[in-house]
Amino acid sequence: MEMNYVIDTLFALFAMTLIIFMVPGFAMLEAGLVRTKNVTAVLTTNIMIYAVASMAFMLIGYSLAFGSWDNDGMSKWAAFLFQMAFVGKTVNIMSGGVSERTRIVPLTFFTVLMAALIYPLVVNVTWGANILEGTLFDISSMHDLAGCTVIHSTGAWALLAAILIIGPRRGRYKNGKIRVIPASNIPLVVLGALLLWIGWFGFNGGSVGSISSKENADLVALTIMNTNTGGLAGAIMVGLLMYFKYKRLDITMILNGALGGLVSVTAGADVFNMYAPIYIGAIGGVIVVYGVWLFDKLKLDDPVGALSVHLLNGIWGTIAVALFADVSLWGQLKGVLVVGVFAFTSSFMLIYIINKITPFRASDDEQLQGLDIEECGLEAYAEFKRGI
Amino acid sequence: MEMNYVIDTLFALFAMTLIIFMVPGFAMLEAGLVRTKNVTAVLTTNIMIYAVASMAFMLIGYSLAFGSWDNDGMSKWAAFLFQMAFVGKTVNIMSGGVSERTRIVPLTFFTVLMAALIYPLVVNVTWGANILEGTLFDISSMHDLAGCTVIHSTGAWALLAAILIIGPRRGRYKNGKIRVIPASNIPLVVLGALLLWIGWFGFNGGSVGSISSKENADLVALTIMNTNTGGLAGAIMVGLLMYFKYKRLDITMILNGALGGLVSVTAGADVFNMYAPIYIGAIGGVIVVYGVWLFDKLKLDDPVGALSVHLLNGIWGTIAVALFADVSLWGQLKGVLVVGVFAFTSSFMLIYIINKITPFRASDDEQLQGLDIEECGLEAYAEFKRGI
Amino acid sequence: MEMNYVIDTLFALFAMTLIIFMVPGFAMLEAGLVRTKNVTAVLTTNIMIYAVASMAFMLIGYSLAFGSWDNDGMSKWAAFLFQMAFVGKTVNIMSGGVSERTRIVPLTFFTVLMAALIYPLVVNVTWGANILEGTLFDISSMHDLAGCTVIHSTGAWALLAAILIIGPRRGRYKNGKIRVIPASNIPLVVLGALLLWIGWFGFNGGSVGSISSKENADLVALTIMNTNTGGLAGAIMVGLLMYFKYKRLDITMILNGALGGLVSVTAGADVFNMYAPIYIGAIGGVIVVYGVWLFDKLKLDDPVGALSVHLLNGIWGTIAVALFADVSLWGQLKGVLVVGVFAFTSSFMLIYIINKITPFRASDDEQLQGLDIEECGLEAYAEFKRGI
Repeated sequence: MEMNYVIDTLFALFAMTLIIFMVPGFAMLEAGLVRTKNVTAVLTTNIMIYAVASMAFMLIGYSLAFGSWDNDGMSKWAAFLFQMAFVGKTVNIMSGGVSERTRIVPLTFFTVLMAALIYPLVVNVTWGANILEGTLFDISSMHDLAGCTVIHSTGAWALLAAILIIGPRRGRYKNGKIRVIPASNIPLVVLGALLLWIGWFGFNGGSVGSISSKENADLVALTIMNTNTGGLAGAIMVGLLMYFKYKRLDITMILNGALGGLVSVTAGADVFNMYAPIYIGAIGGVIVVYGVWLFDKLKLDDPVGALSVHLLNGIWGTIAVALFADVSLWGQLKGVLVVGVFAFTSSFMLIYIINKITPFRASDDEQLQGLDIEECGLEAYAEFKRGI
Repeated sequence: MEMNYVIDTLFALFAMTLIIFMVPGFAMLEAGLVRTKNVTAVLTTNIMIYAVASMAFMLIGYSLAFGSWDNDGMSKWAAFLFQMAFVGKTVNIMSGGVSERTRIVPLTFFTVLMAALIYPLVVNVTWGANILEGTLFDISSMHDLAGCTVIHSTGAWALLAAILIIGPRRGRYKNGKIRVIPASNIPLVVLGALLLWIGWFGFNGGSVGSISSKENADLVALTIMNTNTGGLAGAIMVGLLMYFKYKRLDITMILNGALGGLVSVTAGADVFNMYAPIYIGAIGGVIVVYGVWLFDKLKLDDPVGALSVHLLNGIWGTIAVALFADVSLWGQLKGVLVVGVFAFTSSFMLIYIINKITPFRASDDEQLQGLDIEECGLEAYAEFKRGI
Repeated sequence: MEMNYVIDTLFALFAMTLIIFMVPGFAMLEAGLVRTKNVTAVLTTNIMIYAVASMAFMLIGYSLAFGSWDNDGMSKWAAFLFQMAFVGKTVNIMSGGVSERTRIVPLTFFTVLMAALIYPLVVNVTWGANILEGTLFDISSMHDLAGCTVIHSTGAWALLAAILIIGPRRGRYKNGKIRVIPASNIPLVVLGALLLWIGWFGFNGGSVGSISSKENADLVALTIMNTNTGGLAGAIMVGLLMYFKYKRLDITMILNGALGGLVSVTAGADVFNMYAPIYIGAIGGVIVVYGVWLFDKLKLDDPVGALSVHLLNGIWGTIAVALFADVSLWGQLKGVLVVGVFAFTSSFMLIYIINKITPFRASDDEQLQGLDIEECGLEAYAEFKRGI
């Protein structure tokens, strides 16, 4: 028994470490996708989110989610660290989608509330102590291994609320036209996406919770394999779509396809057979391509495609569990609905209130100059000459 | 017994994860070494290779190599993931060496064939089911721990075939002179090389196959130490050569020396004593320096030095096992020969056929403009002003 | 018992791998902080340090520190690798602080002496064989889990010696004014700092030495949690200071605050309760902000803030163990003093002697042109147009 405790602690620490690689993952992805004049602001936002969200979760959120710090199967500190590695991700999903026009300080206030209240309450009723147990809104029957709904949709519902309140970037939708704003640093985009991919192994594999029996070892390995397959399928599918539509392999789309595929298998990677993620991830890729198009039509300005990757695929992935495994569709839909309504309305209210106190949106002048100077006092690439 | 199964599964997943860091490793290394106008194309190629090669290996190649998915000592899914992490590397070795003039679509077709047929057949007769058992060409006595011949030479033989068919970059060899084309982003080169270095710990250490006994734990740790020492010796040796020849420490050469040293100990890191890798890696470094010079003399244009790092050192490393450990030289040479003939001829034929259907080589105009626009539709550094 | 041996070997290899991520961590951090004309030189220095320091430690230093290679609890090769991963860090701390004006060859000579003599002697009297046992200078009662004094202060004392001998960068202090020299690549700074952060989990967690009992599993997990909390607190504290002082969130300062916080809990992360690192790390952040200001007042030119992060916080972290845990203050102070005197004087003497043979300082002309051309023969960003 002691060896199980030891091995599961080591396993949780390993998984947690992989998830922490998602901190540079998100940071590099977003720094590469935005314009050079907003790179420092985006990076600073990412660092503040990790610091503030983790601290708030340690001091308040974790107890709210799970009721206590006790743990039988592994060190309670390792169990905490694994859960703590998740919390910043929900805010990262949100912050990325409103980048290039959002001030850091109000975002940091929202981070505190997200990590101390909104996300912990979602975890409470899904993976945690479950204050809704026995009520009409009990959604504990939803199968959501590593957070299609709990993490990805929650963060993306907050993003939708934020976009509605903050609005699009200055000049993005003008005279009925969509202005294309190119990414400034593709190597960083690729690096970031690949770090996220690797982090996903820890995210989904670690969510099995234990590796210390033969059955669990098989389950963890299958989960990681299925996770990876979802990403492969998403990337390949978008590659094919790009090639047949435009004869051009748009790497930012292909990577978003991979991320969409990874999201789409996150709820059920432990219960799928090895072929299901091929279909699920490929559909996830298609969803990303048309989602990006759709949200632009709706003038919901999302520079990193987070609504398509995390919201649409978070929902799709939760439903896919019912389609490809022996799980009740109604239980999945109910989970999507309850979490969605709660995450969106609570985020909307809190962002609305914060916005009254200190506005999220940077002024047009500040956006024109770039957020780096005003928000951070330094440029990302001080010596490099720039065009555009 | 169950604990051994659990620990070896965890160990394989750990090793696999380290190898996956080689995906950003190769991507960053190559993105840093090529000109800015070809960076997106190189990165897209790397992503497509990982996606397509892994998928093809899962659906076809793995069964061809090993005959079945069964496994006793660890989860069969973990055993697969570890092997899957290898396959893209053979294509990466090939694609890097023909970058800056090669189109992505034919390369992707070849990736499918490499991952589904060529590489699995090489694995079959060395680490796998062995269809050559008992025949004249049986090379199963070759000691090749983690693929000096199976991975590095195989990929580099395919590269040699590709270079012969595709030809050098436009303007590289002109009027009997070699035009020096400088790397565009040295930090990415360094980052990439170091991620490869770390990935190598998983590559070679994991190839021991088990860590769950005292003997195996020692063997895994010795293997990782020897792997690292090979890299150290290669870097130091090339540093000395550079300094005494030019009084300049050319970092791209030093890193290629490190990579050459790492390749050179990959076949025998488990059977060397702790001092042998110093000699083997140092020789590996020397081989890189003179190899790069030699291949340029032969007008075999290889922007990343892959022929020197992977082909020459793949051969040297396989032979070194016989020189520094109790292994038959003839068995090693026979392995090098059989794999070399098969990998080169099969790659040559397949590349030749694909080339007739859709040519690998980008036109001179496209090369002049850079591959990014035509192949991917976006620039790597859209806002940065460039000279040269 | 065999399983303990196996698990602790796997654990040490895992921890070692995380620490090796600090090699790209330091490299990217420093490459981002210096001007573009010195980036290749800084990167080359980092690679040479890893190669030369690790080799010297393997051949000489490790035996000097520990007396023998024997080990009971885990594979002796894994125990060595874990210790080897530390040694380059002490030199990295030193080299970063004298960047932009220091030649690579003398620095490499010093690296050999640091890794073969100075650092091993410090380890000998703290974690190792202890030649001072029973003497007046016996400091083995100092509690220094992962090297606040042994690693961070030692490296930073060498840095102080180097700065005194080498002097500031050309034009840094002119007519009584401090010329601000902006960082050239903020994404690299962020990436580097985050890789260091992740490496710290292995550094401090691995220093517990064993994970294979319930008690040790708890201790390792607590140590990693406390390490992380120190970093969080440092980042948040500096973020607050920056905001209230300047209304600007200077990301390079915030990251140095995080690193200062990480250093400050490195001596006692295993003996603190979960709240202590919040205070210790926050103070560590304050120390960084005022330390950077102080050292500039003293005209000790340190482009990366290493004296504040590693020297001041190395001392603070060692003392903090006595303030927040049941450890003798006198034992801690004595350790700080003995190591400080030895590390500073021995470094000063050796740097002084090497400086007579081949000067550390690049000429003013070379500094004006940038070190990359003269030292390495190639530019970091050859195609990019630069201003300033």
